Amino acid sequence: MAEFDVAEFDVVGIGNALVDVIAHADEGFIARESLVKGSMTLIETERAVSLYRSLGSAVEMSGGSAANTMCGVASFGGRAAYIGKVCDDELGQVFGHDLRAVGITFRPGAPEADTPTGRCIIVVTPDAERTMNTYLGISSLLCPPDIDTATVAAGKVLYMEGYLYDRPEAKEAFRAAARIAHAHGREVSLTLSDSFCVDRHRDDFRGLVADEVDILFGNEDELTSLYEVDDFEAAVAAVRRDCALAVITRGASGSVIVTGDGVITVPAEPVDRVLDTTGAGDLFASGFLFGYTNGMSLPECGRLGSVAAAEVISHVGARPLIELHKLA
Amino acid sequence: MAEFDVAEFDVVGIGNALVDVIAHADEGFIARESLVKGSMTLIETERAVSLYRSLGSAVEMSGGSAANTMCGVASFGGRAAYIGKVCDDELGQVFGHDLRAVGITFRPGAPEADTPTGRCIIVVTPDAERTMNTYLGISSLLCPPDIDTATVAAGKVLYMEGYLYDRPEAKEAFRAAARIAHAHGREVSLTLSDSFCVDRHRDDFRGLVADEVDILFGNEDELTSLYEVDDFEAAVAAVRRDCALAVITRGASGSVIVTGDGVITVPAEPVDRVLDTTGAGDLFASGFLFGYTNGMSLPECGRLGSVAAAEVISHVGARPLIELHKLA
Repeated sequence: MAEFDVAEFDVVGIGNALVDVIAHADEGFIARESLVKGSMTLIETERAVSLYRSLGSAVEMSGGSAANTMCGVASFGGRAAYIGKVCDDELGQVFGHDLRAVGITFRPGAPEADTPTGRCIIVVTPDAERTMNTYLGISSLLCPPDIDTATVAAGKVLYMEGYLYDRPEAKEAFRAAARIAHAHGREVSLTLSDSFCVDRHRDDFRGLVADEVDILFGNEDELTSLYEVDDFEAAVAAVRRDCALAVITRGASGSVIVTGDGVITVPAEPVDRVLDTTGAGDLFASGFLFGYTNGMSLPECGRLGSVAAAEVISHVGARPLIELHKLA
Repeated sequence: MAEFDVAEFDVVGIGNALVDVIAHADEGFIARESLVKGSMTLIETERAVSLYRSLGSAVEMSGGSAANTMCGVASFGGRAAYIGKVCDDELGQVFGHDLRAVGITFRPGAPEADTPTGRCIIVVTPDAERTMNTYLGISSLLCPPDIDTATVAAGKVLYMEGYLYDRPEAKEAFRAAARIAHAHGREVSLTLSDSFCVDRHRDDFRGLVADEVDILFGNEDELTSLYEVDDFEAAVAAVRRDCALAVITRGASGSVIVTGDGVITVPAEPVDRVLDTTGAGDLFASGFLFGYTNGMSLPECGRLGSVAAAEVISHVGARPLIELHKLA
């Protein structure tokens, strides 16, 4: 059981601030648009425009991986803050509103002229799988001055999103945030986000995990990619050497919590009908972190992760529709 | 059975082009914000800002009454066009995209500097009732030059939304559109939209119904308000004198189709669970108009209306999620 000093926030998240543009489409659309199903692809303005043009009728909802996680923490009744860059445009206003509406303290960073709020075009196929195409916009421009020291210092756990770890300034911001957290006796967590992030920055990620990260989140594919092993057991052994605590999701097979003492297996919660897998990993992390920062046992933290993931995959959209503290 | 000349469109809609901002809230929120449950209230910028601030996390979806109806027509496989004013801002782009994405021809009118796209803040209470607060923005500035003659002339039926009938220029635009339609041998339909519209413009509406309207849509409250009678039968008798065809919805009791020959009763389609009544009337009109413009009998037109209304109240949002031609 983790013990923490008194803190204003349970969790402080840092990530790409994005508004999701969600539409349903069939497999034919995935093929025609040459999308890689289930993956996240970064796209530029021109491609964002052309893809949106060929997309069906859509719904706009605030998203962003770490922001979704903070919404989950808040939905459990936890106290959360979020650092992520938006523009003062309509989508930026929507993003800020939707965080504040659930009680999250939002630090939008310094404005940058002419760079719009980022958006993620999510195509949901009939099998409930989501394929993401992200136009990062201003979100990727996060840099050290955007990291509000007082906010990071006030959170029991810092939670950073691998997706954001790309531009040199963002990498610096990660290191700066981790230093602030540790200097104030806080813990640092990271989600690997996506295999493509791991592929692109494997050495940096390994360094980060070994040097700065107290709690690592990821799924099976991301972890095996991080350590370049084929076998899940080998990846678990590797992460045990690097990290005090690792929480690895395995889809319908549940998750495992890896500590120095051993491996705890957590079953997935049953779901009547999976409608949209967007946000499953984000919400799993929210349940785990809420439990962890509120002194619960690791199996209980894992159970809350499963509860939150089950809620979010049972409907369209990456944030909970039912207050998670009622399900806990 | 209606017979029409060959036409490019089955239905051409004119209305307030709005993006819906949909959030769930409890009865306490309705009371605290002094909202009138189930009604539509027009709000100004300041109130829109303050209401949005106190609102929970929301979802943005294209809306607008007549635009929802055109989406229903398209979802049945019909050919629809829509005239409504948006700004070239992010919400205006979303609105246009979502119409074009379902195959609707969109005429956004001439731009007006500095007037943003309109939005409708919809609060859905646990009883599935919607309370609407509309900031009209540019949508209400529709005026005669925005009425594209070729588009109106190319539609078998013109469908106009009472909500828009407010500013003198918009009223002129209604009359102009009706004249164009009739000059090209088309039929003119109107929805009364809301009792408050009827209250505000009763004499004008009665004149419009008596002089210009071939098919009137409305619900029970709107019709009794139009004729200032307490009794539904008396309202039906009055509308029979004014109008060749009237289609009146009565919620869970279904609807009635009033013609010179008599009154046809149409049952509502059963719904497992009503989640959000937004768009019920809009979608009823879409089913009716699709049937009507494709030569179906009046009872069949009514049945399609009930099918479309049942689909849209079974989920959150005012546009169909399932292709209506599959349910028809």
